[in-house]
Amino acid sequence: MNVKTTVICVGTELLGGKLNSNSAFLGDRLSSIGLEPSQIVTVGDDKNTMKEVFRKAVGESNVVIVTGGLGPTFDDLTREAMAETLGRRLVLDRNALSQIARYFVSRNIDMPKNNESQAYLIEGAKLLSNPVGTAPGQLIETDKKPYSDKNEKLLVFLLPGPPREMQAVFEASVFPALKRIETGIKKSFTLHVCGMGESAVDEKIRPIVEAERKLEKGVVSFTILAHQMIVDIKTSVSGEDELLIDETLTNLKQELRDVLKENIYGEGRQTLESVLGELLIKNKKTLSLAESCTGGLVAHRITNIPGSSLYFKQAAVTYSNESKKTLLGVKEATLKEFGAVSEETVMEMAEGVKKVSGTDYSISLTGIAGPAGGTSEKPVGLVFVGISGPEGPQAHKFIFSGSRIEIRERAANFALDLLRRRLLNNTEVRKQKKKK
Amino acid sequence: MNVKTTVICVGTELLGGKLNSNSAFLGDRLSSIGLEPSQIVTVGDDKNTMKEVFRKAVGESNVVIVTGGLGPTFDDLTREAMAETLGRRLVLDRNALSQIARYFVSRNIDMPKNNESQAYLIEGAKLLSNPVGTAPGQLIETDKKPYSDKNEKLLVFLLPGPPREMQAVFEASVFPALKRIETGIKKSFTLHVCGMGESAVDEKIRPIVEAERKLEKGVVSFTILAHQMIVDIKTSVSGEDELLIDETLTNLKQELRDVLKENIYGEGRQTLESVLGELLIKNKKTLSLAESCTGGLVAHRITNIPGSSLYFKQAAVTYSNESKKTLLGVKEATLKEFGAVSEETVMEMAEGVKKVSGTDYSISLTGIAGPAGGTSEKPVGLVFVGISGPEGPQAHKFIFSGSRIEIRERAANFALDLLRRRLLNNTEVRKQKKKK
Repeated sequence: MNVKTTVICVGTELLGGKLNSNSAFLGDRLSSIGLEPSQIVTVGDDKNTMKEVFRKAVGESNVVIVTGGLGPTFDDLTREAMAETLGRRLVLDRNALSQIARYFVSRNIDMPKNNESQAYLIEGAKLLSNPVGTAPGQLIETDKKPYSDKNEKLLVFLLPGPPREMQAVFEASVFPALKRIETGIKKSFTLHVCGMGESAVDEKIRPIVEAERKLEKGVVSFTILAHQMIVDIKTSVSGEDELLIDETLTNLKQELRDVLKENIYGEGRQTLESVLGELLIKNKKTLSLAESCTGGLVAHRITNIPGSSLYFKQAAVTYSNESKKTLLGVKEATLKEFGAVSEETVMEMAEGVKKVSGTDYSISLTGIAGPAGGTSEKPVGLVFVGISGPEGPQAHKFIFSGSRIEIRERAANFALDLLRRRLLNNTEVRKQKKKK
Repeated sequence: MNVKTTVICVGTELLGGKLNSNSAFLGDRLSSIGLEPSQIVTVGDDKNTMKEVFRKAVGESNVVIVTGGLGPTFDDLTREAMAETLGRRLVLDRNALSQIARYFVSRNIDMPKNNESQAYLIEGAKLLSNPVGTAPGQLIETDKKPYSDKNEKLLVFLLPGPPREMQAVFEASVFPALKRIETGIKKSFTLHVCGMGESAVDEKIRPIVEAERKLEKGVVSFTILAHQMIVDIKTSVSGEDELLIDETLTNLKQELRDVLKENIYGEGRQTLESVLGELLIKNKKTLSLAESCTGGLVAHRITNIPGSSLYFKQAAVTYSNESKKTLLGVKEATLKEFGAVSEETVMEMAEGVKKVSGTDYSISLTGIAGPAGGTSEKPVGLVFVGISGPEGPQAHKFIFSGSRIEIRERAANFALDLLRRRLLNNTEVRKQKKKK
């Protein structure tokens, strides 16, 4: 069965500038089981627009997932709009009500009167428990009529809007239900590259893409995407024969790896910081950081990884010259002669934090993230990255374009990638020595 | 003229898990001039789906903004799909080609052959220069026919997908063109609250909301939204009489401030870290940080603010007991008796970093962000926040629910809010003293 999925995100805030993390989460999870949405539609808390979008989705899709608008407040209208779209009533569900009441009891809070509205289900809907909040989800199994001629089955899921609650209900109830739907098989992998531009990656992989194009249309597809000095290459293969699909994927991955080599830092959910963590653990090495222009971003990303305390010891965010001297032992003379943003300072920062922390490796960053503070000699975007290890410190100079936030992100990516490459090379060297 | 805006984001990656920051940016900018999109639709790099969505948008809207799919690679199909939708040809534009060529010359790079495809414009389109990348934007001014009976004007903008390029073209060419469109007036403000739950905020403001409802329908609208312990309240007023709208907004803001008081930390683009920065500058005070469980997140957020070096001196990210002792002077005995996650340790961390950095105030955090490391006595989510200042250190205990990343975000929000409240109170105290 060729299943068409539509995701609808409800919330006026999503039209007015709020980042939509629910659509990213659902896209990721749904595509992992071949149900990648064909469209994601965002609408405001306006009942007429909601009904119009619901009608179209119900007529065209087999799976409709709606997030948001299930809260207790006056602007939560998803329940009503979907009930009217499907021509059903809303009924008070005793189970839902007692679940909501229990949520408040367990927190020693009196249940506000307005939370009662969350216990209304669309007639015939199945209650999807919400283990982490008050808005339960709902599942309505029906057919597409009266909005389509086809008499196909239709699953409509209503999920709460807050990401944590949406994810909890999705994992507990939606994902298991969807996995049972028989679809054609579609599998994919994504490779991540750092240190090469989008066009350069495109030129390298173009022969592989063209060769596949000449074979069967639509069976293999490639997408490439650049963001903050990182390029993602997603390769998807669809068909009926799972063994054949797996073999194709394995071959394509090898072909891509052959042309892009160590520029590929990871795949799938791997990030520069997770890969670096794995390398540090594998090599039994520890890490410390000295950050100036990135202001804690690199430390934040490294410690986002569960278990990072195994290899990460400390970071000094030295935003002033004073702290560069007292915390890291950068010399007064160095700061005076070369300035805080210089090759010399970044090397002393790397050496200093490595010594203070007693770690095997260290990363240091100093630069001008802007928007102010640039000169013609040292423009906004100038960043020095220092890497130190058993072989001593090395400095790398970059000039990044972009906003303050982008310059910081780009500097962080390159810094993490530089240490990754250093560790890879050291591992290679050791392997070769062993062979001899 | 009642203008309807549709935003369409093109990119298979956006259906497969990639966060869509373009829709947030466009929503924010468009709603600031009363052109909040009625829908945001995300589609993949599939030409047929694109054409279907383009057709609908062209028929229903007055302004259609498409982002993405203008790159140089094989999967960039927006130009073709929109040309076919509008029944026009694609023509090579000499100006566009020379702009693209200049981009590469200025970077000392040979222009890859595939970038030539970016110089094709839809017949009759106006070129929108891209100052920061190779994909120029396009503007097509036409009417809705043949997809609508109404003979209304239609503006179609094609913008590049990379956020920095999209934003640059938007600000240079799209925003000025849109501001000239006459719309009914709609203005709004958003207040941000920390330290109160969504339901509690709703109950407090409900009388204000209900009173407005009884007046004129649709003129005033409220939206409330909770995320990571922060609640946003957006109030919009529309009409024809700008003076009346401004007066209504001023009155409503005052009414909301009267019921929520100092729980409101800011409005609009203000963040906890920007408001805290303003308070520190106003009071001529400096700040240092000692972070354990948040791993640099608080430092990262504080230094996201341009000019933060005025008040922020340094952060110590002490992920090990060893570094808590050596960098911050936390006593061995304290760690032994009470543990690294304790009221006693967090107070010594706050005092320690304040002393080492010589700052007026300090914030410290220690806790268990999970997913592992929790015990029945000290569960995952337990976080202590220390605040120190001229009056000495104070500790605050929290138990947060959520994922590792959410616990860290929530802890950071509360920590920033605690110091904000402390500085507000100190300012209040000083004011009262002066009055006496």
